[in-house]
Amino acid sequence: MAGEVAALVFDAYGTLFDVHSVARRAQMLFPGKGDALSAAWRTKQLEYSWLRTLMGAYEDFDRVTRAALEWSLESLGLDAGEAAQRALIDEYRKLATFAEVPAALERLARSRPLAILSNGHPEMLEAVVDHNGLRDRFRGGILSVHAARRFKPEPSVYRIAEEALGVPRAMVGFVSSNGWDAAGAKAFGFRAYWVNRARAPVERLGVRPDAVLESLAGLEPALA
Amino acid sequence: MAGEVAALVFDAYGTLFDVHSVARRAQMLFPGKGDALSAAWRTKQLEYSWLRTLMGAYEDFDRVTRAALEWSLESLGLDAGEAAQRALIDEYRKLATFAEVPAALERLARSRPLAILSNGHPEMLEAVVDHNGLRDRFRGGILSVHAARRFKPEPSVYRIAEEALGVPRAMVGFVSSNGWDAAGAKAFGFRAYWVNRARAPVERLGVRPDAVLESLAGLEPALA
Repeated sequence: MAGEVAALVFDAYGTLFDVHSVARRAQMLFPGKGDALSAAWRTKQLEYSWLRTLMGAYEDFDRVTRAALEWSLESLGLDAGEAAQRALIDEYRKLATFAEVPAALERLARSRPLAILSNGHPEMLEAVVDHNGLRDRFRGGILSVHAARRFKPEPSVYRIAEEALGVPRAMVGFVSSNGWDAAGAKAFGFRAYWVNRARAPVERLGVRPDAVLESLAGLEPALA
Repeated sequence: MAGEVAALVFDAYGTLFDVHSVARRAQMLFPGKGDALSAAWRTKQLEYSWLRTLMGAYEDFDRVTRAALEWSLESLGLDAGEAAQRALIDEYRKLATFAEVPAALERLARSRPLAILSNGHPEMLEAVVDHNGLRDRFRGGILSVHAARRFKPEPSVYRIAEEALGVPRAMVGFVSSNGWDAAGAKAFGFRAYWVNRARAPVERLGVRPDAVLESLAGLEPALA
């Protein structure tokens, strides 16, 4: 299998960048309800990304994220002013990486181009990459679904990465902590590496990831 | 507005038919964990319907429902044999209607054709309609998304109802307890009546339902 993966594409939120700090800020704003808010918000954010793509009614991830927050606040009976909402959304620009990520990327970038492919609005995405000083790692591109005006796991989204890299899809390794995103990438024709940080059951979506990892530290051995 | 709605299309599960008995059976099989199982199962069932449509990997709702149940059982660490799983899935064929539904349908059917449009597999759907003796109410058709091999809220699904009824979409009233389904129908061009049984916030998906009802009893006044 060695040499088969000529390029690597990473999901961003939850895969490279830890969204825990969003939950922490929610907890500061709404003591005792922060976890419920974060969970509802994340669920709704994904739902809206899928539903809007199905409806043919794309709007960018910044707006989807804001709409999901509004719904979640109302659902939990929480009252947040404009400043608090803005503070929560701005956390996405300042997320830290998971602990093992910088060293893993540094090693992986030596042997092949790395790229990011994310639902995030290009500007949100560049901000968090720069915040972590990781721009030089991604010479394959910091790619957003925004170019296709659809969200994952619609196949035209994964095609953005295939075309930007100029590598046939069967030789592209796609890395995501979201089981459904790994499944979408696999169905598209990428090799899929699922970083199962949440130790969740494998998604029953008709395809299986090529490998299941506990963290990004396991990626290089899985490629070898 | 009177006379504008020439036909009515109803979502099935959660709108006409109460899925509570599924939760009750889950509670019998797994005391203390039935509610968690039902909630995870329902969430996953919808997720899979959306994701498979986005991935272009349709499989029928019976299989999606079974796959979602499998995932949910594993996620909660529950062990269910084949017979228990079958019993849970079979509940969908024997759901009761919500209390107000038979009388409301009887009145509404006097003035316009009624139809069902559901994610359900045609056979699951006909079974539950017959179980409740409601076949004669739906002279507009008992329609499944299966014909389009896509799930709601993809527009081609709503087109099935428009074509079966032969009524221009602007004159079709679509009735659903799912806010996202009402939004999908509205985006397609139907008039949307959201039966907000769960008293949830309105979905932020760029469109608003034409009316929000507490139950089907409020539909006739809303049409008048």
